[in-house]
Amino acid sequence: MINKLINKIKKTNAPIVVGLDPMLSYVPEHIQRKSFQEYGETLEGAADAIWQFNKEIIDKIYDLIPAVKPQIAMYEQFGIEGLKAYQKTVNYCKEKDLIVIGDIKRGDIGSTSEAYAIGHLGKVQIGSKKISAFNEDFVTVNPYLGTDGIKPFVDVCKEEKKGLFILVKTSNPSSGEFQDRLVDGRPLYEYVGEKVAKWGEGHMGDSYSYIGAVVGATYPEIGKELRKIMPKAFILVPGYGAQGGKGADLVHYFDDNGLGAIVNSSRGIIAAYKQETYSHFGAENFADASRQAVIHMIKDISNALDRC
Amino acid sequence: MINKLINKIKKTNAPIVVGLDPMLSYVPEHIQRKSFQEYGETLEGAADAIWQFNKEIIDKIYDLIPAVKPQIAMYEQFGIEGLKAYQKTVNYCKEKDLIVIGDIKRGDIGSTSEAYAIGHLGKVQIGSKKISAFNEDFVTVNPYLGTDGIKPFVDVCKEEKKGLFILVKTSNPSSGEFQDRLVDGRPLYEYVGEKVAKWGEGHMGDSYSYIGAVVGATYPEIGKELRKIMPKAFILVPGYGAQGGKGADLVHYFDDNGLGAIVNSSRGIIAAYKQETYSHFGAENFADASRQAVIHMIKDISNALDRC
Repeated sequence: MINKLINKIKKTNAPIVVGLDPMLSYVPEHIQRKSFQEYGETLEGAADAIWQFNKEIIDKIYDLIPAVKPQIAMYEQFGIEGLKAYQKTVNYCKEKDLIVIGDIKRGDIGSTSEAYAIGHLGKVQIGSKKISAFNEDFVTVNPYLGTDGIKPFVDVCKEEKKGLFILVKTSNPSSGEFQDRLVDGRPLYEYVGEKVAKWGEGHMGDSYSYIGAVVGATYPEIGKELRKIMPKAFILVPGYGAQGGKGADLVHYFDDNGLGAIVNSSRGIIAAYKQETYSHFGAENFADASRQAVIHMIKDISNALDRC
Repeated sequence: MINKLINKIKKTNAPIVVGLDPMLSYVPEHIQRKSFQEYGETLEGAADAIWQFNKEIIDKIYDLIPAVKPQIAMYEQFGIEGLKAYQKTVNYCKEKDLIVIGDIKRGDIGSTSEAYAIGHLGKVQIGSKKISAFNEDFVTVNPYLGTDGIKPFVDVCKEEKKGLFILVKTSNPSSGEFQDRLVDGRPLYEYVGEKVAKWGEGHMGDSYSYIGAVVGATYPEIGKELRKIMPKAFILVPGYGAQGGKGADLVHYFDDNGLGAIVNSSRGIIAAYKQETYSHFGAENFADASRQAVIHMIKDISNALDRC
């Protein structure tokens, strides 16, 4: 799957991933109205609205990008109905041959981590059958519980030829509270980065490992260091756009071939029509605004990489 | 909700919580067979089997205990159908007036953490309505992303009078990889513990904060230290029983009144019938074995606390 991701990045010339993190407030009123008319102001109605919103965006951008990253929390807040919309979104993106990175940030220990890994990446044994549940291609994982929490995910990834992005340095302002703490004079995220490199050694694709890392766009100097510490880990980079990261900040996350990283934008793409730059599209054409925002983002990052 | 938890602990005289973490392999064959006959060897069939298994156990133990802790991963591995069984379990336990600690170990940032908090503890705004989705009483949360990840949970807890248990020191063997790293000569978990104490200051119940901590039973010396660092944080203690923790190890997690901690056992209770001690109950009477195991666990912990 990491080879497929890299091939798709080369083909689209777009090392980017679109975060499908729909807040109900991003969904234009005409879509909300229709869903509420059909299902009422219910969990089902909300789930239908975000699914219709997603579908229209996916239809307008799938040819430009290699991957999407649905954030499961945005669906989980609507309970079972929301999670059905998550699953529909995952399935639909896979039909469009997009790689799906489930942003689930799960992490537990032993058989519990295994259950998450099986449910999201693998197949669960039921009687004599093996059945997939959510079936994403990659998921994000939280490392706080150490190797016990990660190994079951890696084992399932090996079996299924799927991958992980493990949180190393997150993009948020308070990420430093624990992640930057100095351990023997070096920040904790470097230790986590070393572990990611080690966990990934046993599950290599052609040029990068199936086991990648999350490093926020908002800390470019740290990204540069971590790139060296984890030379074979593909880096998923959140924090571009709405959170403040720019293409020019991100060049050191990439290798000399413009590979090794994939930059995420969520709100900046899916709610583009709410920005002044794209407001001329209007709420009716929100998905066209998203397409334009994707094109701009690809250009921003390509320009930054070309300048190197 | 923390006051209610404490009252229920006093009333039952049982500072314990039963982990409803059903593996399909724990579910006796006669239940699996019935569910598979009705729904086939499908996700729905598996979800029905674990729900029937849970229900029978809950019916047999609810009068003895203050709280349950369903581990969402064990349901999530069966996808949407599994999560429906999770929701049914949560609702059924609440009908039985049990306090429900959703072991979800979520954690993200900003609006994403807020979405998890709303979906599990609060109400989501849909048009003019506010609707609950999973509606647990407490959830477990991962602190790796710092205050940005925790504050949205605390805010929802304040509004709903609900609570959290934040991972501080987990029970697994490799928990030390990052959690024990020395920062200025002190282990990282102490810093996390200090933050938990701080996060909890603004959301106090009568004697303990609504914001508690997870500290594994397998590290009793660390539990003793953390009890001092977080004097007002209720401690949720996993790792008792199957993972090796004993009642006698846990006395320092409690205060002088035998409060301040709640000890979890999962496999040791719900799969008790598979242990030699309880094998005479037989698979047909698995829930009676669970009841007996609960009684033994309460006695083990009471004895340990009495000896202090």
